Amino acid sequence: MTTNLCGLHFFGHQWQGKEAGFARVNPQTNEQLPERFAEADADDVDAAARAASEAFWAYQQKSDAERAAFLDAIASELEKDAGQIVPMAMLESGLPEARIRGELGRTAGQLRLFATVLNAPYDPLLMDDANPERTPLPKPELRLGQLPLGVVAVFGASNFPLAFSTGGGDTASALAAGCTVIVKGHPAHPGTSELVSRAIARAIDQCAMPKGLFSLLQGKAPALSVALVEHPLVKAVGFTGSLKVGRILADRCALRPEPIPFYGELGSVNPQLILPGKLARDFGELASLQVNSMMMGHGQFCTSPGLIITQKGPGLDAYIAALAENVSAQRAAPMLSGGICAAFNHAVEAMLPEMEIIAQGQAASAAHQSRPLLAKISAANIMQKPALLEEIFGPFALVVVCDSQEELVELINALPGQLTASIHGLLEEVEAYAALISRLSFKVGRIMFNQMPTGVEVARAMNHGGPYPASTDSRSTSVGTEAMKRFVRPICYQNMPEVLLPSALRSDSSRLKRF
Amino acid sequence: MTTNLCGLHFFGHQWQGKEAGFARVNPQTNEQLPERFAEADADDVDAAARAASEAFWAYQQKSDAERAAFLDAIASELEKDAGQIVPMAMLESGLPEARIRGELGRTAGQLRLFATVLNAPYDPLLMDDANPERTPLPKPELRLGQLPLGVVAVFGASNFPLAFSTGGGDTASALAAGCTVIVKGHPAHPGTSELVSRAIARAIDQCAMPKGLFSLLQGKAPALSVALVEHPLVKAVGFTGSLKVGRILADRCALRPEPIPFYGELGSVNPQLILPGKLARDFGELASLQVNSMMMGHGQFCTSPGLIITQKGPGLDAYIAALAENVSAQRAAPMLSGGICAAFNHAVEAMLPEMEIIAQGQAASAAHQSRPLLAKISAANIMQKPALLEEIFGPFALVVVCDSQEELVELINALPGQLTASIHGLLEEVEAYAALISRLSFKVGRIMFNQMPTGVEVARAMNHGGPYPASTDSRSTSVGTEAMKRFVRPICYQNMPEVLLPSALRSDSSRLKRF
Repeated sequence: MTTNLCGLHFFGHQWQGKEAGFARVNPQTNEQLPERFAEADADDVDAAARAASEAFWAYQQKSDAERAAFLDAIASELEKDAGQIVPMAMLESGLPEARIRGELGRTAGQLRLFATVLNAPYDPLLMDDANPERTPLPKPELRLGQLPLGVVAVFGASNFPLAFSTGGGDTASALAAGCTVIVKGHPAHPGTSELVSRAIARAIDQCAMPKGLFSLLQGKAPALSVALVEHPLVKAVGFTGSLKVGRILADRCALRPEPIPFYGELGSVNPQLILPGKLARDFGELASLQVNSMMMGHGQFCTSPGLIITQKGPGLDAYIAALAENVSAQRAAPMLSGGICAAFNHAVEAMLPEMEIIAQGQAASAAHQSRPLLAKISAANIMQKPALLEEIFGPFALVVVCDSQEELVELINALPGQLTASIHGLLEEVEAYAALISRLSFKVGRIMFNQMPTGVEVARAMNHGGPYPASTDSRSTSVGTEAMKRFVRPICYQNMPEVLLPSALRSDSSRLKRF
Repeated sequence: MTTNLCGLHFFGHQWQGKEAGFARVNPQTNEQLPERFAEADADDVDAAARAASEAFWAYQQKSDAERAAFLDAIASELEKDAGQIVPMAMLESGLPEARIRGELGRTAGQLRLFATVLNAPYDPLLMDDANPERTPLPKPELRLGQLPLGVVAVFGASNFPLAFSTGGGDTASALAAGCTVIVKGHPAHPGTSELVSRAIARAIDQCAMPKGLFSLLQGKAPALSVALVEHPLVKAVGFTGSLKVGRILADRCALRPEPIPFYGELGSVNPQLILPGKLARDFGELASLQVNSMMMGHGQFCTSPGLIITQKGPGLDAYIAALAENVSAQRAAPMLSGGICAAFNHAVEAMLPEMEIIAQGQAASAAHQSRPLLAKISAANIMQKPALLEEIFGPFALVVVCDSQEELVELINALPGQLTASIHGLLEEVEAYAALISRLSFKVGRIMFNQMPTGVEVARAMNHGGPYPASTDSRSTSVGTEAMKRFVRPICYQNMPEVLLPSALRSDSSRLKRF
């Protein structure tokens, strides 16, 4: 690697911090890399929060068009540095070049999509006209606007070092909303975080945005995360990661003297419901789609399809045979970190006695690799052991076989909250399952037909979230342009002079919907 | 009182429960009333939650038009029973007939307004069209819909026995959203809750709505409230009441195995910022508006203006003299309950050493009455004692005098979250205060110009909430039609056959906004 890293934090628009803290590992070789990165302490958090809060007052005054231009500038600066960012992210995540290039494109693309929506917002802004003649009391004039929440803390995810990290969806949506951002970089890819932060810093300069609006804090210690979400100037949190850590931080946010919103996207098993007609006709294609999807990023997508729900009947044996053939051909591979790999192997080992192995991938050639696994269990058994419905992060899926329609209904009702579910069916058979599919929809943030859940489209109508424990707040999405609504709140302007109103709420605004 | 009360709970569409629990007091006389009401226990909560959850699956399938007709039916049934409900609410709250009649009208009106919005929704529904030709990956078709959360627990407020209680805004908005409701009736007005529940029960029958969709649990014990918000089948909570109780329940909701949204509307001091030009010109009118507003419901409105922010200058002495004259003419009166009265007297007594009394109302003739009070303090003093910025629920207001513009800015920045703030100014002077007013807007849920905060309009563009501690969730309103959004969450339908889509999301729907 030829890129020079400073290994510091970025706040108050300066690189600063004590040097020589933690190191990180090359996931491909499982060997420690030479650079060291500063470990942020409570003083750094405080300094970053003060700078971000100061910058907030200036940033929230910027127009939608100015914020849009800023997001576009970040996208361009990221693309300009692709030559540095891509190899660094590959090195730190162990992910292949095509995947990281695609992820950089996605990251730039989502920044630009937020800019597009800022330039052409489609939500009506509600206004009630005054009625001074109304009895017994006159009706006041009301206009409903929104305000950004303030400083947002963002926790980068390990599995998407660009799209769900330093300059990823949480940062983009918070900046689009008019909030300033402090990123707690993921300790597995601090070099990538530093390079992305440099690009953002240049965009701040170019657009003459308030210095301090973006900060990066590097660190590994849990105390840093707690200090950040508990800082009084931090007003909301975006998080992508594990249920365990997400829940700890969510509880901390809820119990602050001033509770704040915590948006944790935590993952799930993403059930694949296969209807009998489809199974009988398309078992081979279904098996191939399933294994391709579960092997994306070596199973380390939060939408990885980890639970396949089937019924006894024609095609089932052939489907399982096809799954086995596909899985057997898969290679073992390193995971995003040694810790994730150890957790995967441990979870699989703990569950194996409860399940029947269908197939395993090729054997691992090193301890930091994980071996793909497909297993089977009856619906009756899994409902007695709800822990088996929890996510195992990695290249694993469990086929559940239902003996009857009643058992299928019971199983769907027993599912915990999910990011997604897929229905695989023939058009002519779905109506018979409409009630069941409706029930399933109440368990998920996104439901799809004859498509796989991996590859979350960044779009206006996306929802990436879902009932707990898939996310900590089912009322929100972490992907797509609606994600910016997480970081604003309503305010009513009553009888306000035009000069005191935001421009979008003035009487000549085309967004006003009057009643 | 001639109305026969059964004193029981209502759940599973039946009146049930063990009799002879708690009694309530006539606030006017401070004497106990004869009837006794059942005290719900954990078994009652469980039975109500099961019934409400069962009913939810049927109710969520009803169309918007069916839900609208149901809300209209509740409104009509409430009006039909005005002859019973009005005297009962007067008896139990001590509020005068005109006020209670107005409140019944408001309660029916808001049910009908939700029905209007269900019949003519104005939010666009987002849809991304598929693009199978896109490279490297085809774009899937996405439609963003919403689902009701499930069973909602509603806590009635003491100060609005109709509009913020059993059939009030929280119940109306949850029913409009497609949720079923369990009301924990306020123990100060159980008779009113029973009568309102009877009207709702008749509307359920008339509209052939699922039995069990509405429950009333009577009770006084804190354990009942905790059991209700912790029940696994309860998926959201609407609450209007004190910061102390609201915070306890909010924390319980956050720490459940499955955390759920808690919408607590808790109250505030509602600052009145008086600009110098307005003060000099309109001091007399300002004083009269202030005292009228703070005396509404004997100061027991959550929007009661309890903090008046002024600057030294022309008109201040005359304003204070006019306030004094107005306040001196006010009568002492009973409060909503003996407990509220004792809390008011205690809080005033504790604060008095810190303040200078401007005027008191007429002396109380009984211990359960409270005497209006207006006091004064310097900005420098109050900023050293932030406890003085907390709400005193009752007929009290504090005039804060700033020595300088700098002190004014400091004071605004020191304010905790508020439901509302008012700016009283001349049009020609507001621009000079635009930056300060902008800062103030970040502290409040509603900001208004030359109007008083009491009398929260039920409308589309209303926001009744605000930053903590005014509410527990500044992202939501408890008044106005946007309140129903508290009880739904998004879901994305990807590539779904039309037959599996809600009608509003089908391709022929006029609400779709396609991209």
